[in-house]
Amino acid sequence: MSALHWDLLLTHATLAGCAGDASFGLLENAALACADGRIAWIGPMHDLPVNAQAARVEDLAGALLTPGLVDCHTHLVFGGNRANEFDMRLNGASYEQIARAGGGIVSSVRATRAASEDALFAQSLPRARALLADGVTTLEVKSGYGLDIETERRMLRVARRIGAELGITVRTSFLGLHALPPEYRERRDDYVALVCDEMLPALAAEGLVDAVDAFCERIAFTPAETRRLFERAQQLGLPVKLHAEQLSDQGGAALVASFDGLSADHLEHLGETGIAAMAEAGTVAVLLPGAFYALRETQLPPVAALRAHGVPIAIATDCNPGTSPLLSLRLAANMACTLFRLTPDEALRAITANAARALGLADRGALAVGQRADLVSWHARQPAELCYWIGGSLVRQVYVAGQSVAS
Amino acid sequence: MSALHWDLLLTHATLAGCAGDASFGLLENAALACADGRIAWIGPMHDLPVNAQAARVEDLAGALLTPGLVDCHTHLVFGGNRANEFDMRLNGASYEQIARAGGGIVSSVRATRAASEDALFAQSLPRARALLADGVTTLEVKSGYGLDIETERRMLRVARRIGAELGITVRTSFLGLHALPPEYRERRDDYVALVCDEMLPALAAEGLVDAVDAFCERIAFTPAETRRLFERAQQLGLPVKLHAEQLSDQGGAALVASFDGLSADHLEHLGETGIAAMAEAGTVAVLLPGAFYALRETQLPPVAALRAHGVPIAIATDCNPGTSPLLSLRLAANMACTLFRLTPDEALRAITANAARALGLADRGALAVGQRADLVSWHARQPAELCYWIGGSLVRQVYVAGQSVAS
Ligand SMILES: [Zn+2]
Ligand SMILES: [Zn+2]
Repeated sequence: MSALHWDLLLTHATLAGCAGDASFGLLENAALACADGRIAWIGPMHDLPVNAQAARVEDLAGALLTPGLVDCHTHLVFGGNRANEFDMRLNGASYEQIARAGGGIVSSVRATRAASEDALFAQSLPRARALLADGVTTLEVKSGYGLDIETERRMLRVARRIGAELGITVRTSFLGLHALPPEYRERRDDYVALVCDEMLPALAAEGLVDAVDAFCERIAFTPAETRRLFERAQQLGLPVKLHAEQLSDQGGAALVASFDGLSADHLEHLGETGIAAMAEAGTVAVLLPGAFYALRETQLPPVAALRAHGVPIAIATDCNPGTSPLLSLRLAANMACTLFRLTPDEALRAITANAARALGLADRGALAVGQRADLVSWHARQPAELCYWIGGSLVRQVYVAGQSVAS
Repeated sequence: MSALHWDLLLTHATLAGCAGDASFGLLENAALACADGRIAWIGPMHDLPVNAQAARVEDLAGALLTPGLVDCHTHLVFGGNRANEFDMRLNGASYEQIARAGGGIVSSVRATRAASEDALFAQSLPRARALLADGVTTLEVKSGYGLDIETERRMLRVARRIGAELGITVRTSFLGLHALPPEYRERRDDYVALVCDEMLPALAAEGLVDAVDAFCERIAFTPAETRRLFERAQQLGLPVKLHAEQLSDQGGAALVASFDGLSADHLEHLGETGIAAMAEAGTVAVLLPGAFYALRETQLPPVAALRAHGVPIAIATDCNPGTSPLLSLRLAANMACTLFRLTPDEALRAITANAARALGLADRGALAVGQRADLVSWHARQPAELCYWIGGSLVRQVYVAGQSVAS
């Protein structure tokens, strides 16, 4: 038998997130080897092949090792911030007063449109770095603060550039149907046509769109408008996902499921019909506890029913300037446990394997031979600690495709 | 006029937390100079004396500069953690089942008693480092997981050692009346006597006690037991503070105020009598939103009444393994805004000037000439941003007594 040649061998690790196991795939006193950016071997220390050779060996001394975290729903590319609006609201300003002062999503659209590509990159990169420092190696970023083709393009280009700069995977979602831009207030249909018939095809042709998203809600776009977008996405061969049932049950989850959608996101007002449709289609339920927390919502997403129907649950930061200025996916997991009563096991799957699935990525999110060697070692020994501690920095080392990343 | 010689000059800063100002003391395009560990000069850039000389000059390029943050209520020295209990609870275990499995505060007492001083130091130091990395330069640490003299002493020694190791100020509180230790279950009075008549005098004589604290609650100690402790503290010339009105109104706030107490902490069930007594005595109200969040409490502390009576409000992490495993004071401030509806201005005073006052420290918590030069520069330009972002790392540089600290 010839010698095994690995690039990296991590020894004496507490592995968590091994594929297929029932209790967050715990494997103690184990080793994991990487070769060519993939996981090449996993097993107990005592099974390490005697003929194994690795260019680099690191002894984790019992530290927890998990798959790199996956944040499958963010709006982290935007200009400005809305701290001022946060301040006004806490000082008693009404939504109307804030709107009159130029606040709300319109203010993010204005600041994003005004920012050059370099400025937008410089403002957004630290947010992606914060997520990476917290263990995130795969990240979704949506457009949707441009609402014109130039700015939507700029947002998506910045998202790609962040991925290149940090060496992590960034998946883009085109969210032209995020809000009706002020200049189309009286021409709603024209805007929907512009998004479906011009923006999406053009940006897709430029390779900037990995998936298509919309905000289906009374205050945003109707199911019929959403369907029109999804039909165009289908023609272009692009997967769809949806902001659905956040404030009311619009039937968005069933709609996105009927297009074999990747995910339906938010879901506080999701009913049985939508859940059954999602289960049938294999559409992932993406829960966003950061927005629930920041908006002080009281309507909980139907976790028990999602469990009962076997709908996979993911959790994301929803990092955005208005309703979830959240810069830690681990904190989102804590919120999902604390506020939504997910178990730590569920929360950890929700930020790894199920989040990868929500992005249509089958090559990551679990510790298994052949998966990408996106890994995180932690200042922790039990998986539940990752959900238990609130804030702080638990990351010991992040590896992307088997390479250590400075954080 | 002879030349001014400063150790450090910070230019082009956005100062926040200047003494006495109404809106979190904002001073834009300003400079701040330090000499001999104190703030030596503050003013607009254009007022910088022409004869000023500084050994080091740093251009903050508009970055926000605040006083070092003060975390005035923590239990961060403890052995083990309670992630397992968190996991059990989310998997449906009742409090009784957790208690039967050895959980609850007793498990922290067991782990703390079992840990050597070095082990306790090694386990606790990263928690203090996390707070420091988030901008905390003054920290309170309580005993109370020993409940025997050797372990209480060890906890307080470890607290002192953390201060020496990190070069920050650590203030200790003796919390012997935290819980009744299991071995005294049938001898409650004996334990109270031990704490008041033996532990406190001995530990105070060793210089380990800066203040005396207790947990006055139905499930802990009575007002009469608390009074006995406070009388002893008074004899010893030590200031007092109290865990009061967290789960019910025991009259603890009025009691601690009657001893001119530094602070009454938690206070969700505080009534008008207690508030009036605190206002009269100048006792600070320390709110602990981390525990409120983690326990999913619904009874809000009486913020409006505290405001109306002019009671100073502080916020702290309450960092502890059971009810608030919170490692970020900035996140506590966000929770105070989000959950308790403090304004950002109130929240920032609550983690600086008012928190310093809750520790009896008059030399910090504001940017004013003569104050300690404990400072933080931030990746932010407006004070409200410090409360607005949830998670992430906003610290640019921490200074303790005018010296940069590596974080
Ligand atoms: Zn969203
Ligand atoms: Zn406490």
